[in-house]
Amino acid sequence: MIVTVTLNAALDITYRTPALVPHTTHRVSDVTERPGGKGINVARVLAALGHETVVTGFAGGRTGDVLRELLAHTSQAGTSQAGMSQAGTSQAGTTDALVPVAGATRRTVAVVDAATGDTTQLNEPGPVVSAAEWAAFLDTYARLIDGADAVALCGSLPPGIHVGAYAELVRLARGAGVPVLLDTSGEPLRRGVAARPDLVKPNADELARLTGSREPLRATRDARRRGAHAVVASLGPEGLFAATPEGLWRAAPPASVKGNPTGAGDSAVAGLLSGLVERLPWPDRLARAVALSTATVLAPVAGEFDAVTYEKLLPQVAVTEQPAG
Amino acid sequence: MIVTVTLNAALDITYRTPALVPHTTHRVSDVTERPGGKGINVARVLAALGHETVVTGFAGGRTGDVLRELLAHTSQAGTSQAGMSQAGTSQAGTTDALVPVAGATRRTVAVVDAATGDTTQLNEPGPVVSAAEWAAFLDTYARLIDGADAVALCGSLPPGIHVGAYAELVRLARGAGVPVLLDTSGEPLRRGVAARPDLVKPNADELARLTGSREPLRATRDARRRGAHAVVASLGPEGLFAATPEGLWRAAPPASVKGNPTGAGDSAVAGLLSGLVERLPWPDRLARAVALSTATVLAPVAGEFDAVTYEKLLPQVAVTEQPAG
Repeated sequence: MIVTVTLNAALDITYRTPALVPHTTHRVSDVTERPGGKGINVARVLAALGHETVVTGFAGGRTGDVLRELLAHTSQAGTSQAGMSQAGTSQAGTTDALVPVAGATRRTVAVVDAATGDTTQLNEPGPVVSAAEWAAFLDTYARLIDGADAVALCGSLPPGIHVGAYAELVRLARGAGVPVLLDTSGEPLRRGVAARPDLVKPNADELARLTGSREPLRATRDARRRGAHAVVASLGPEGLFAATPEGLWRAAPPASVKGNPTGAGDSAVAGLLSGLVERLPWPDRLARAVALSTATVLAPVAGEFDAVTYEKLLPQVAVTEQPAG
Repeated sequence: MIVTVTLNAALDITYRTPALVPHTTHRVSDVTERPGGKGINVARVLAALGHETVVTGFAGGRTGDVLRELLAHTSQAGTSQAGMSQAGTSQAGTTDALVPVAGATRRTVAVVDAATGDTTQLNEPGPVVSAAEWAAFLDTYARLIDGADAVALCGSLPPGIHVGAYAELVRLARGAGVPVLLDTSGEPLRRGVAARPDLVKPNADELARLTGSREPLRATRDARRRGAHAVVASLGPEGLFAATPEGLWRAAPPASVKGNPTGAGDSAVAGLLSGLVERLPWPDRLARAVALSTATVLAPVAGEFDAVTYEKLLPQVAVTEQPAG
C-alpha cells in the first residue's frame, strides 16, 4: 500500500469560456469539479496502475465534503480510467484517510479558453491549520506509514503549518523504514531535502531555486549533496534527468508533444513511486514516468492520462545513461 | 412583506489578486463568499431599509447549502448593515423560502485587481431545473404572494426553465392583486413585459435591446406600449429616467461618483419597491432609488451600501419632471 500526503488538498474547478478577457463578464459554458492537490492526483494515477493507495492530508468545510464525495466516487474500481483495463492493468482502490480541519478546503479555478486550450489559474490559499489539527494529522500519518510500501509528500503547505513540516514527515518515514518521495518547492523543499528523503522530483525552476543552477548535472548533484538520496528533475518536454546512487540517466519522450501539461509532473511521480515499490531498475522507472507524463499531456481532460497512449509510448521512451561529468 | 424571486440564485465568490493576467497562475490572497443573485441582493437592501422580506427561487447542492447558511447568518437583525441603524432605520428580517433543486446552485467568481479595483467576472450557468421542480416552485410562489405587499422578479433564468417563466409569474401576481416588479433582460424581459407588470427597471442596454432605441423618452414609451405599467430605466452615472402613468421624471445623483457599480441596479430596485409599498410619490421613490444606488457604488464592499452616505445623498438627488415630448 502506498500513502500519498496532500496537506493542501483542493477542489479543482475547471471553467470553459470562449476567451478570458480581463475586466469583462464571462458566461461559463462548462463547469467540471474533481478532487485535486498533487498527492491526490498521484494517488489517482497509482490506482490506475493497480496500486492500492491511501490519501491523507486535510479536508474541511463544504468544499472538503464535495472533495471527499468525488474521491469516494472515483475510487470505485473500474469506474474511471476504463482504458487502463483495456490495456491489461486493473484499477485498484483509493482509501480516504483525510483528516478533518475546521477551515474549508481550498478551491482552484482553471479558466480554459475553449479555442486554444490556454489556461488561467486561480488558486485559493487553503484553510489555516491549527496546532491541534497538525497533531491529529501526525497521529494519522504515523498509523498509516506503519507497514506502508512507500509514502509521497506532495504540494504546497496550507497556512498555519510550519515550514519544516515536510522535513518532519520525511524523518518520521525514515524512522519507520518507509521509502519517502518529496515533491514540493521553495523553503519546504529546502528543509525537506536536508531531512534526507529517498527521492525528490523538482522541476527545472524548483531545482534552480534550490541549488542556484539550471545545469541538470550540476544542480542534481548539488541537491543530492544537500541530502536527497536520489533526484529526478523534470525538464518539461525534454523528459527527466535522474541522479541516483546507481548512476545518471536521461529519459526522453519519443517526440515533443502538444497538449495540457497540468498533472504531468504528478503522473511522473506516480511512475517513479510505483517503479520503486515494484523494485524496477532505474531505467524502467524513468521510462514509465516519462510515458505516463507524456500520456497525461496528450489526454483530452487535464490531469488524466490515456492508458492506450501510455502503453504505446512506454517502449518508445529513450533512456540513456549519462557520464558522471 | 415583500417577496423577491431569484430563480438563478448564486454563491458570489470574490477573489483579490494583484492583477489578472490571462494564461498565468495566480495565488488568491483574499476569498469572500456571500449569497448572491439579483433578488437576494434586493432583499438585503430592503431588509436594511426596515422591510420584512421573503426570498424564494431555487437552491441546491453544497453551494446551495452554503448560500442558505450565509443567508441565515446575514438575516439576523443588526448583524449587518450596522451603519443603517446608526442612521435611524432598523434592520428587518429576511426569510428563506428557497425551493430545493437537485442540481447545484451556481457560483459566480469576481476576480478583483487589488490595485485598481477592476473586476473580471466568471458566471456559472446554474442548475438545470426540472418540470417537477418548477411546479414545486409555482406552489411556493402562489403561497407566498397571497398577502404579500409586492413581489420582485429578478435576474436570469437557469437552464431548463421556459423563456416565458417571468410572464407566467407576472400573471400570477396580477391575478392575486400583488404589485409586481420585473428586472431581467432579453427574451424573458420581452415576454414578461407583455404580461403587464406594474414596473420594469431595465438598464440602457436592456431597454435598447427590447425597444431598439437608446433615446430614454422614446424607449420607455415603447416599453410601456408593450405592456409595462411603469418603466424606470437606469442610465448608469446619469441616474434614472421614469415613464409612469403619473408623468415623466429624471432623477440624477448630485455628482458623478467613482466606485464599484456591482449591485447598484439591485439597490435601485429595492428603493423603487420600498417606495411603492410605502405609497411614496414617484419623485420620492426615484430619489431613494438614486441615493441607494449611488451609496452602493461608493461602498467599500461590492453590493453593500453605506447607510450614512445614503442618508446624506437622499436630499441631494435632483428629480425633475420631464415634458411629454
